[in-house]
Amino acid sequence: MGKIMHERAIVKYKNGRLVNLRDTIATETALTVRVNNEEFATMVCTPSHMEELVTGFLASEGLIRLPEDIESLTVDTGKGYAYVTLKNKKISSADFVTKRVIGSCCGKSRQFYFHNDVQTAKTVTTKTTITPEQVISLMKKMQEGSSDFQKTGGLHNTALCTTEDILLSRSDIGRHNALDKIYGHCLANRITLKDKVIAFSGRISSEVLLKVSKIGAGILISKSAPTSLAIDLAEDLGITAVGFVRGGRFNVYSHPERIEG
Amino acid sequence: MGKIMHERAIVKYKNGRLVNLRDTIATETALTVRVNNEEFATMVCTPSHMEELVTGFLASEGLIRLPEDIESLTVDTGKGYAYVTLKNKKISSADFVTKRVIGSCCGKSRQFYFHNDVQTAKTVTTKTTITPEQVISLMKKMQEGSSDFQKTGGLHNTALCTTEDILLSRSDIGRHNALDKIYGHCLANRITLKDKVIAFSGRISSEVLLKVSKIGAGILISKSAPTSLAIDLAEDLGITAVGFVRGGRFNVYSHPERIEG
Repeated sequence: MGKIMHERAIVKYKNGRLVNLRDTIATETALTVRVNNEEFATMVCTPSHMEELVTGFLASEGLIRLPEDIESLTVDTGKGYAYVTLKNKKISSADFVTKRVIGSCCGKSRQFYFHNDVQTAKTVTTKTTITPEQVISLMKKMQEGSSDFQKTGGLHNTALCTTEDILLSRSDIGRHNALDKIYGHCLANRITLKDKVIAFSGRISSEVLLKVSKIGAGILISKSAPTSLAIDLAEDLGITAVGFVRGGRFNVYSHPERIEG
Repeated sequence: MGKIMHERAIVKYKNGRLVNLRDTIATETALTVRVNNEEFATMVCTPSHMEELVTGFLASEGLIRLPEDIESLTVDTGKGYAYVTLKNKKISSADFVTKRVIGSCCGKSRQFYFHNDVQTAKTVTTKTTITPEQVISLMKKMQEGSSDFQKTGGLHNTALCTTEDILLSRSDIGRHNALDKIYGHCLANRITLKDKVIAFSGRISSEVLLKVSKIGAGILISKSAPTSLAIDLAEDLGITAVGFVRGGRFNVYSHPERIEG
C-alpha cells in the first residue's frame, strides 16, 4: 500500500494575507492493468487496496465473474502496474474494443446500452427494508469514519453496510474506484450483497447506479444528487436510490417501498 | 438543445415524516460520437451546447487542432448521435485503440503518460496575474450565476473568465464535459486563452489539469481539492492551481507567482 496522502507546501490566503504553510493532499497515482500480457486499461487511483480495486474493476468490466476466474494477480505499486493472468487465456484487449468509451465519471462513460452492461447488470429483488433513522445513521457513521477525506477534502468514500452498521469502507480519489474496491473485496471474500446497503459520498450517475446493480445491493444511499438516467435505471433494476442524505433529511428517488414508515 | 433538467416525483424525508412531492433532477443523456462513419466514443452528458461539447472533446482527444479540421458536424439530440466528418478522412477509431483507457473522472483516466497528451499538453507561459480579491469574486460570480446547479445539486460548472469578470459559463453533469464545452466554444470562436482564467466547481484531478493545459489557460481556480498528481502536472505545465476557494479563503498549490500581494 502506497501513501494515500502526503504533505506539500502551499500558499494559503486567509484573513486578507498570503501565508506559506504545509497541507495534506490526496495522492493520485496511475495504475496500468495488463491482462494476459496485454495492456488493458490505465486508471488513476488512490494507492490502497489495489488487489481489491483490480478484482472489482475486472468484474465491473465483465472480464471475470468469480475470483477463481483469475489465475494470478500481482500489483507493483512502485511501478504502477497490475499483472493479471486469467484462467481463460483467450480473453484479449481486442475483445473489448467495442467497449472503448473514453473518460467517464463526470461525463464520458460506459453505458447500459453496451452489451457488457446488459449482460452483467442484474435486477435486484431483495425484500430488505430500512428505516429513515438507519439511513441517516449509516451516512453519519461513514462520514465520521472518513478522517482521510476530512484531511484532504479530495477522497470519495463508499461503505458496505447492513441496515444496522458499516461492515467495510473504502476511499479513493475516484468514486468508481471506491465502489470497485468494495466489489473486489466482496468477490474475494464471497460476501452476499443483496441484503446489503451501499453508502456513497458522490453523485449518483448512470455509471454509479449500474455498478451498484452489478454488485447486487438493493439500497444505495448518497450524500449527493442523482441524475435522471440513474433514476430511470434504478427503477428498472429494482434499486432504491436515496440522495441528499444530509442534516436529518433525504430524498427517495426510486423504489420507496424499501423505506419503512 | 434538450431539457437540461426535469421534474420527477420523489419521496422526501423531513422532520421525521415521509412526504410525496416533486423535485428537479439533472438530465443525463447518452451521446455517441461517430467520426468518419465509425463509432468513436459514447459519453453521458447534459444535453446543452452539444456542438461545442463534441468540438472540445475531439480537440481534447487529439483528433482535431483547429475547427477547420472538421468538415461537418451534426448532432441529433433526439437519437443521441453526433456525426462528424473530418477533413482528414484517414483518421479512424482504430488509430485510437492505444488510448483506450476506460472510465475516467473519478478514477479511470487518460494519462499524461499517453502519447496524445504528451503531444497536446502545452506549457503555459502567460505573465497574467490575479489578485486574491479577484479569485474570490470570480468564484462567487460563477456560483451565483449557476441557478441550474442550485436547483438540481447535480451539475458541474465551468467558467471562462478574464481576471475581472466571467465571459462564458457552461454546466454539465460531467465536469470534463463542462470543460470541453468551454474548449469547443473557444476553438469555434478563436478566443485566445493564455491570458484567461478557468473557474471550476469540481476537484482538480490530473485529467482536469491536463485539459486546462490543452485549453491553454494559465490560472485554474476551483471550489474543491486537488490531487497530488494534478499539482505535479501543474508545476510542470506552468499552471497556477488554486483550490478550496470558499468563504473568503483559498489555497495556492502551484506557481503562486501569479497571485498578487
